[in-house]
Amino acid sequence: MKQTGLIIVLSGFSGAGKGTIMKHLLQNHPGEFNLSISATTRKKRQGEVDGRDYFFKTREEFDSMIENGDLLEYATFNNNSYGTPKSYVEKLVNEGKDVLLEIEIQGALQVKKIFPEAVLLFVMPPSADALKERLVGRGTETEDVVAERLAISNKEAEFMPQYDYLIVNDILENAVEQVYSIISSEHSRTARNVENIEKIKQDLKKFERS
Amino acid sequence: MKQTGLIIVLSGFSGAGKGTIMKHLLQNHPGEFNLSISATTRKKRQGEVDGRDYFFKTREEFDSMIENGDLLEYATFNNNSYGTPKSYVEKLVNEGKDVLLEIEIQGALQVKKIFPEAVLLFVMPPSADALKERLVGRGTETEDVVAERLAISNKEAEFMPQYDYLIVNDILENAVEQVYSIISSEHSRTARNVENIEKIKQDLKKFERS
Repeated sequence: MKQTGLIIVLSGFSGAGKGTIMKHLLQNHPGEFNLSISATTRKKRQGEVDGRDYFFKTREEFDSMIENGDLLEYATFNNNSYGTPKSYVEKLVNEGKDVLLEIEIQGALQVKKIFPEAVLLFVMPPSADALKERLVGRGTETEDVVAERLAISNKEAEFMPQYDYLIVNDILENAVEQVYSIISSEHSRTARNVENIEKIKQDLKKFERS
Repeated sequence: MKQTGLIIVLSGFSGAGKGTIMKHLLQNHPGEFNLSISATTRKKRQGEVDGRDYFFKTREEFDSMIENGDLLEYATFNNNSYGTPKSYVEKLVNEGKDVLLEIEIQGALQVKKIFPEAVLLFVMPPSADALKERLVGRGTETEDVVAERLAISNKEAEFMPQYDYLIVNDILENAVEQVYSIISSEHSRTARNVENIEKIKQDLKKFERS
């Protein structure tokens, strides 16, 4: 059956493990998904390839992408801007390919505004205490940074009901396969099969009794 | 995580294979699902057990179930009435059990009216010609009956967009596992996890900065 690809947005609390889920999903199901490629003003590092790792842009190019509405969402860290090019995502889904995006909560909700058909997944740890343990356990963050992350999570939790699905990342492989199940079942939604329904309706007409 | 059970309605064209999908789903995943038990005015046959095969009712009892709104849907064939007791379905889902219902299209839409949270699956063959072949292939139906069934399918196709999901029964085991994926992913919908979201929001509050 014909169908456009899905836009799947993986988002959630910092420390919930969305990056790891994404990585395992791509490993477990090679060739089934496409990662969205971000545009960035950051300088290209050794070994990086334009159009594979990032779309490298000058500040002027990036700003005109913003002005032209070419970015689904964007954010700036340490004076470097990162954004998701709308046209690249559209190209992939029009080719029938499913596109995965891993983005922060505000960006995810922005994507949903532009593409209401996007599937938003919120990754969370099994409990608030587990979230704290993971942030502390990284060992790379000061106590202050952990406290700040938790305070941010507290605010971000308000947006959870705006997501489509909740992924509880307790046992990693279960979470990965749950994401896979969701993508697979979203393809079966009647709202995504309007053309296929129309086709069988037309084909059944030949059995109409005169 | 706590959750009420799901009401899963398997419906679709006659000859699409919903009974077989249901049977294999129960075999592949023993103990995971409960079948809804119908009430009927039909006489109990040898070996049948009340409350296991059917809830056997007199005509008067059945009619008062209708009057009291105790039936989610009902239909009459060969002077025998069959219906789905609402209270039994409610009891199971309140115990957190997923309930499977295999019912005709009008009945399925009736269930959705009473339980908007029910998940409606429409089973269809890969094409209109495949549907005809299956009905003819049964070998038990006259040409006239096949023609009538196809004419009914033609009318029933109008209701497909009111369903949540479309199951294309091409390769049986794929269709069975697709149903299983849908049930699993429906449990992850944020709308079905309001209590769990509320709990993590409350738990995160303790990390609020003063």
